[in-house]
Amino acid sequence: MTDDGTEAETDPQDAIDAASAERERGRDPRVYEHTAGDVQEGIPFVGAGPGDPGLLTVTGKELVETADLVVHAGSLVNSELLERYCADAETVSSVGKDLEELIPLMRDAYEAGRHVVRLHSGDPAVYGAALEQMDALEQEGVPTYIVPGVTSAFAASATLRTQLTLNGTANHVAFTRPQGKTLDPEDDHISDFVEMGDVTTCIYLGTHAIPDVMDRLLDDGHDPETPVTVVYHASWPDEDIIEGTISTIGEKVEEVGYRASALVIIGDAGAGTGYERSYLYGDWANRGSETQEADD
Amino acid sequence: MTDDGTEAETDPQDAIDAASAERERGRDPRVYEHTAGDVQEGIPFVGAGPGDPGLLTVTGKELVETADLVVHAGSLVNSELLERYCADAETVSSVGKDLEELIPLMRDAYEAGRHVVRLHSGDPAVYGAALEQMDALEQEGVPTYIVPGVTSAFAASATLRTQLTLNGTANHVAFTRPQGKTLDPEDDHISDFVEMGDVTTCIYLGTHAIPDVMDRLLDDGHDPETPVTVVYHASWPDEDIIEGTISTIGEKVEEVGYRASALVIIGDAGAGTGYERSYLYGDWANRGSETQEADD
Repeated sequence: MTDDGTEAETDPQDAIDAASAERERGRDPRVYEHTAGDVQEGIPFVGAGPGDPGLLTVTGKELVETADLVVHAGSLVNSELLERYCADAETVSSVGKDLEELIPLMRDAYEAGRHVVRLHSGDPAVYGAALEQMDALEQEGVPTYIVPGVTSAFAASATLRTQLTLNGTANHVAFTRPQGKTLDPEDDHISDFVEMGDVTTCIYLGTHAIPDVMDRLLDDGHDPETPVTVVYHASWPDEDIIEGTISTIGEKVEEVGYRASALVIIGDAGAGTGYERSYLYGDWANRGSETQEADD
Repeated sequence: MTDDGTEAETDPQDAIDAASAERERGRDPRVYEHTAGDVQEGIPFVGAGPGDPGLLTVTGKELVETADLVVHAGSLVNSELLERYCADAETVSSVGKDLEELIPLMRDAYEAGRHVVRLHSGDPAVYGAALEQMDALEQEGVPTYIVPGVTSAFAASATLRTQLTLNGTANHVAFTRPQGKTLDPEDDHISDFVEMGDVTTCIYLGTHAIPDVMDRLLDDGHDPETPVTVVYHASWPDEDIIEGTISTIGEKVEEVGYRASALVIIGDAGAGTGYERSYLYGDWANRGSETQEADD
């Protein structure tokens, strides 16, 4: 029983386990019936993008503009976006609410015929915890689907005027997060990614842990001069950029006092230096299918 | 001298080297003057998103709608998007054109006062080769900037109704590409990422190489039953999903005959099974800054 007297029919972990078992037997038919970007029946889980209202997708904008109830990720979603697109909707922050409260809230509104949108920050596929809400809603008979969005690493890269992959410098990108309450130390691959040398390592959810992470990278023997770029609130009005190295960035971030909402980029690509012409638009530009893909 | 008689003032690699050296001395002041998502002076390099016109950003849509010339990535950008937003603009495909041709084309149009947009597929930060064009244009006195977009891995994840990170299953995401003309075999970390066990490995630009990549993963001793999901043309009308394992996916993709434009997802997250409730919306939902970040 939640504060407002509504009741979830099922335990959320039971819903997850049931959905998981269902997936073992085969995909949900909607996987084949729809393509990504389709507006479907049910509650859309929309990626709000990194912050700037202009970096929401066209479909995401249309969905929130016609919503009656927008359940959003609190201070993770730029209030300018809510003001611009959701002025006529009821808006509810998910911060501080558990699944046992969120699920009946969305279910009851949906069953009452209201247009409900769940607005996550960035893209729901990256550290979004969307699926557990979707599974719980589906278990309650409420259809759901995902509308992808721009993740903060792409906004950080854009504002730095660089790419996360750069020919000859960074051939791969890793999204990771530091060890913490939900991740055991032995599963924390930050040092492994940095060790590879040509991976741009993007750390999400780790602002508070930057000094610890950098100390560990030094303990692991990584080059103290490796560039580290921290982008706070990428695409927000108070966006800020702090530049340093594995040996200096911890102190710099502590001085400014950020404890959340920054993306950490380890590697040369963040600095945009030393790369080579790809020849994507050069000698082998007429070779058929490989070129067809090479601009992806 | 290019086909149409125009001439690039500088060699593109010289422009890259000059820009690279400039970055060593310090960031471009525009990095600090603007935030990601700002419409700036110059030619925007816009991420078109994965394909569906609704998955372009609001700002990207506004820019292409007001463009006089859109230089796009040929068949990598959905023609529906061009028809919907660029009906009144001149559209030019970059496929088959080298930098020596593309740069004067864009420069001359910009200097003639036309609104020029460079439209890349996905997000320009991921295997986009945007920066070399930007450096060459800047060297010619034409300002440029990046507008981020939704990458195809996020569309693939959305259509599969899953997340790329899933608590207890996939704590990290890697974007990689197979060895090929622009990447040496020893720099190909696909096997390393799969070895980590809790990384969702997303292979870009590798449709043609799927059988070879899977054979190599088998040679490296990876579990043949590891799930592999291939999403062809995520979010396009002809989107297609092929499911298998490291041991079966190569043959399945060869049967269908795809040689390009598919994203390969290795790992349990692609299947969406076996994950645990994150407790993002559970017991520790009221603990301050860490929670503030945890929904990112």
